Amino acid sequence: MQSITKLGIFTSGGDAPGMNACIRAAVRTALHAGKSVVGIYQGYQGMIEANFHEMNSRSVSNIIQLGGTILKTARCKAFHTAEGRQKAYDNIKAVGIDGLIAIGGDGTFTGAEIFSREHNIPVVCIPGTIDNDLYGSDFTLGYDTATNTVIEAIDKIRDTAASHDRLFFVEVMGRDSGCIALNAGIAGGAEAILLPEKATGIEELCNQLESAAKSKKSSTIVIVAEGEENGGAYNVAKEVKARFNFYDTKVTILGHLQRGGSPSSFDRVLASRLGFAAVRHLLSGKTRIMVGIRGNEIQTTPLEEVLNKKVFKLSEDMLEMMEVLSI
Amino acid sequence: MQSITKLGIFTSGGDAPGMNACIRAAVRTALHAGKSVVGIYQGYQGMIEANFHEMNSRSVSNIIQLGGTILKTARCKAFHTAEGRQKAYDNIKAVGIDGLIAIGGDGTFTGAEIFSREHNIPVVCIPGTIDNDLYGSDFTLGYDTATNTVIEAIDKIRDTAASHDRLFFVEVMGRDSGCIALNAGIAGGAEAILLPEKATGIEELCNQLESAAKSKKSSTIVIVAEGEENGGAYNVAKEVKARFNFYDTKVTILGHLQRGGSPSSFDRVLASRLGFAAVRHLLSGKTRIMVGIRGNEIQTTPLEEVLNKKVFKLSEDMLEMMEVLSI
Amino acid sequence: MQSITKLGIFTSGGDAPGMNACIRAAVRTALHAGKSVVGIYQGYQGMIEANFHEMNSRSVSNIIQLGGTILKTARCKAFHTAEGRQKAYDNIKAVGIDGLIAIGGDGTFTGAEIFSREHNIPVVCIPGTIDNDLYGSDFTLGYDTATNTVIEAIDKIRDTAASHDRLFFVEVMGRDSGCIALNAGIAGGAEAILLPEKATGIEELCNQLESAAKSKKSSTIVIVAEGEENGGAYNVAKEVKARFNFYDTKVTILGHLQRGGSPSSFDRVLASRLGFAAVRHLLSGKTRIMVGIRGNEIQTTPLEEVLNKKVFKLSEDMLEMMEVLSI
Amino acid sequence: MQSITKLGIFTSGGDAPGMNACIRAAVRTALHAGKSVVGIYQGYQGMIEANFHEMNSRSVSNIIQLGGTILKTARCKAFHTAEGRQKAYDNIKAVGIDGLIAIGGDGTFTGAEIFSREHNIPVVCIPGTIDNDLYGSDFTLGYDTATNTVIEAIDKIRDTAASHDRLFFVEVMGRDSGCIALNAGIAGGAEAILLPEKATGIEELCNQLESAAKSKKSSTIVIVAEGEENGGAYNVAKEVKARFNFYDTKVTILGHLQRGGSPSSFDRVLASRLGFAAVRHLLSGKTRIMVGIRGNEIQTTPLEEVLNKKVFKLSEDMLEMMEVLSI
Repeated sequence: MQSITKLGIFTSGGDAPGMNACIRAAVRTALHAGKSVVGIYQGYQGMIEANFHEMNSRSVSNIIQLGGTILKTARCKAFHTAEGRQKAYDNIKAVGIDGLIAIGGDGTFTGAEIFSREHNIPVVCIPGTIDNDLYGSDFTLGYDTATNTVIEAIDKIRDTAASHDRLFFVEVMGRDSGCIALNAGIAGGAEAILLPEKATGIEELCNQLESAAKSKKSSTIVIVAEGEENGGAYNVAKEVKARFNFYDTKVTILGHLQRGGSPSSFDRVLASRLGFAAVRHLLSGKTRIMVGIRGNEIQTTPLEEVLNKKVFKLSEDMLEMMEVLSI
Repeated sequence: MQSITKLGIFTSGGDAPGMNACIRAAVRTALHAGKSVVGIYQGYQGMIEANFHEMNSRSVSNIIQLGGTILKTARCKAFHTAEGRQKAYDNIKAVGIDGLIAIGGDGTFTGAEIFSREHNIPVVCIPGTIDNDLYGSDFTLGYDTATNTVIEAIDKIRDTAASHDRLFFVEVMGRDSGCIALNAGIAGGAEAILLPEKATGIEELCNQLESAAKSKKSSTIVIVAEGEENGGAYNVAKEVKARFNFYDTKVTILGHLQRGGSPSSFDRVLASRLGFAAVRHLLSGKTRIMVGIRGNEIQTTPLEEVLNKKVFKLSEDMLEMMEVLSI
Repeated sequence: MQSITKLGIFTSGGDAPGMNACIRAAVRTALHAGKSVVGIYQGYQGMIEANFHEMNSRSVSNIIQLGGTILKTARCKAFHTAEGRQKAYDNIKAVGIDGLIAIGGDGTFTGAEIFSREHNIPVVCIPGTIDNDLYGSDFTLGYDTATNTVIEAIDKIRDTAASHDRLFFVEVMGRDSGCIALNAGIAGGAEAILLPEKATGIEELCNQLESAAKSKKSSTIVIVAEGEENGGAYNVAKEVKARFNFYDTKVTILGHLQRGGSPSSFDRVLASRLGFAAVRHLLSGKTRIMVGIRGNEIQTTPLEEVLNKKVFKLSEDMLEMMEVLSI
Repeated sequence: MQSITKLGIFTSGGDAPGMNACIRAAVRTALHAGKSVVGIYQGYQGMIEANFHEMNSRSVSNIIQLGGTILKTARCKAFHTAEGRQKAYDNIKAVGIDGLIAIGGDGTFTGAEIFSREHNIPVVCIPGTIDNDLYGSDFTLGYDTATNTVIEAIDKIRDTAASHDRLFFVEVMGRDSGCIALNAGIAGGAEAILLPEKATGIEELCNQLESAAKSKKSSTIVIVAEGEENGGAYNVAKEVKARFNFYDTKVTILGHLQRGGSPSSFDRVLASRLGFAAVRHLLSGKTRIMVGIRGNEIQTTPLEEVLNKKVFKLSEDMLEMMEVLSI
């Protein structure tokens, strides 16, 4: 095994709060170990276009608190082809990059896994996505911040909901994962939650709302994950309104504001620990692994396992609790 | 003129942050002057249903920081009829209320004006609506808080917008008034703003976006007031996407979260001053007036004038500035 | 074992964000299981003074988002005596309370342990303290929120620190535990952190600051835990200034604002899970245990063990990382 | 009058939130008018050291939401001498700067006034200081944000204060001006406020606290402006404690966190309007004026008048109201 002398670091896929804190940690850990660091802009696209910038300790000054990613991100079709990856490899080789740190979600990891095998370049991955849907880590970067963003929105809506007799629907991110919806729903004291992982028909929802109305709740808020089966908050609101015609229904679509914002303390500490650990593992010769957190300890998982194992973070306990607490 | 001994206070129409701070100020000012105070719940509806609660100094403890209104609010059709108003009058007379403080918008004021004339009961009104669309006051309660809520959302979207090459549309409140849209757009550094007061066709918007693209802006955010002529953010996004097919467009509908949240310092101080002044004016014999703020001074305006004069708070200067600053 | 029919619930010691969310969860879980619930106000003091209020599902409406504790808290000397505890027991027996849920820190737990043995009353404890210094749970209620509060303060100070050439000292809570200081220091990108658990002399601190100055950091912030050995932020600032006389030093003492604020999503979900689990365990016949979270799973630990085992949550890894990242 | 072709812009004195939004507005307004803009770093110090950077439209991208000032600030003794100012003038002349925009407080304005007369260079000033203590503008940049920062702190302290029976002292900025203290005190529902402009002895304060205690207030918070006559929050707390020995007193010193943070919507709109207007006035031939806001209109005042007229923004009305509302 040859020792690594110059690391390339990039973010890819959807951005998530905490990516900058993670970049900062990885860059400084590498510099502290006497290595060079190259920032690769716009993920795989930037590899193909040789969009590289040498980074020093000051390049990551005063970014720990910023949302987004200073390295930008992009989705890149060309990297799906062997020619694209060859070009990417030629470019990083030309500047001497001999190890990679990749921050992103499963799309990013799939690319990293293939690229690493094909061109025999070491890569360590860091889970960065607000969806918290990756195997091998209890939490992904950005998830805690996004959930806090959602509950701030719910709290505000609760103020006005408690002043009127109205029914509110809040659509949150989560195409395949109800993690944000369930946790923000519990934390926001929602009366009902519609998840991608669990079919809840309009009929069933209406029954829940009726029983909430009977127990004289002063306000009613329904969280709708974008990927649930009824087609999103507007559709659900329309169908519910058709049944309860006395209700005044209101809809909020949070959209991409869930991806932004200054990262929470939890995400910044997690980002720092993961960035630090990822570089240490890369420098110690590891490759094709993801660093993650499990039970407050940093652990590593082979990328292959991360990509092949299904994660189901919605325990039955939580779903049962949700029901009990909304009485 | 008979001196007032028992005040009734209520909130009506859409709730707005700062209403609780205003209730607190009015209640304590009246108590301090040796008067009794009755809280009328759910506005005019509560008058008709005799939903009254005696208030003391502790009734308004620890509410200055809360969004919504502890007196609740409702829209009330029965009050539009003479019979409804008669019943309301009988109820308030039965408990000895001989003066009213009403917090709300133009619907609330219209009701107050008619009721006061019809039954010869003194009333002083306080402008409480996030829309900031009333004549006689530079600012209405809740507008400052709502605008801050919107810019926090824009700031978060900017984080992710700056990390990707995407076009974002944010729909904000304002059926007839573009006050929130214009000010939040300026404060959020938006690239374009669509207002109810000023027709901007899709063609014109696309030209603006093209010139923003040419000047290499790192992100593009368009603020869409709900009342603008193109039918809201989703429609605008769809039409723009049809023209710029390379763009990935994303939509956020803030909805009612703009009405909630802990009031800003500005709204709390304004609420305190208006509540204080309203009670003083009522006790000094004034009626059918609105208290407002003009140039940092509390001033009064006859309700009739408030209801009949058009306000246009979007100066040409601001619109011109908006254009210059988004280069 | 007799089955429990009426639970008493109280908060004691220093309040922490998330206590209300926890009260809500415990109350509703008990009601859902068909039990009665009595709120005991002001902790042990309230037991002695029979300050009890029956609670229903609406008693805990709309409190999940509130800081502080609706049950109030107090420190109580009388409960340290057998007579005091006898009186407390007589009072709770008189109203039929036959099981207790206690939310607090080690002082609260010590009282609960003695009281439960002495009077043979079942009790389940929940860790609620911002200090995160209890054995048996990775996290205590309020810690996450407090850390977020501290980093918001650090972020604001960083803005002004980066605009001037100044040295800032921020004193945070932690008499014996540096958990907030270390994590907020890492999350805030502090240049140095003084902890109760690790002696750092002024000499050593000055060396760190000198090397920070040499690497041209644009701002320098030192986090000082209140319990560290040099006597708090004012003293440290004075001594450092005496050595670096060119520096303009500024001090912030955050104090009790670290205990307030709306709980974070993490704290609300944790509070809900712990309240839910505590009642379930109490109803299933468990006593003198604490429910806690370990590796994202709810676990129980005997109170005796919680009280006797030392916890040291500052791993050497974190301390090393802190140093590496502040270059 | 010669037309201006190249503007220099700088911030000086204490930084304030909104300065970046103002820089952005001024730079873009000048560029839009076809002028060049030079950023002068670190205020007068930067003039003397020729710390200049040409600015384009992208130099001020994505800064509207940032606290602090990208142009940095410093206090500069050399500029107090004619030699220093001569050097500054030579430097700005060498790069072709023929007009200045200065953002700061009275120290900044004094320097600008002298420099402009001495070297016949046009200058327009913008009020940027959190203290809101300048004649000629109802509001200065940063004041609204700082007041919001203070009330967030008070709200958090109120949570814990309402859970315990304690007395809290919060020290806020304001050496000569009680504007933040009074307004944040009103907005935070403080029980007493100590101001620099109005002597309140410990005796009088204790009487106020006693009457608050009698009216069964659930919590007591005293706001202490740093410049009040009793020597700051620690001293006041010590003296009050000596009299009410049953009270547990707690102190928070907010310090410089009041200067940071993302500017509020109010400050960003004000900053944009003032930056826009300042450049327009400078380009139209005005000099030695300050642009300010009065009653929602932008107005100008000669610098000489700003510097010589005393401002007293604490009306007797507000002080009276404060007393009435804290019952």
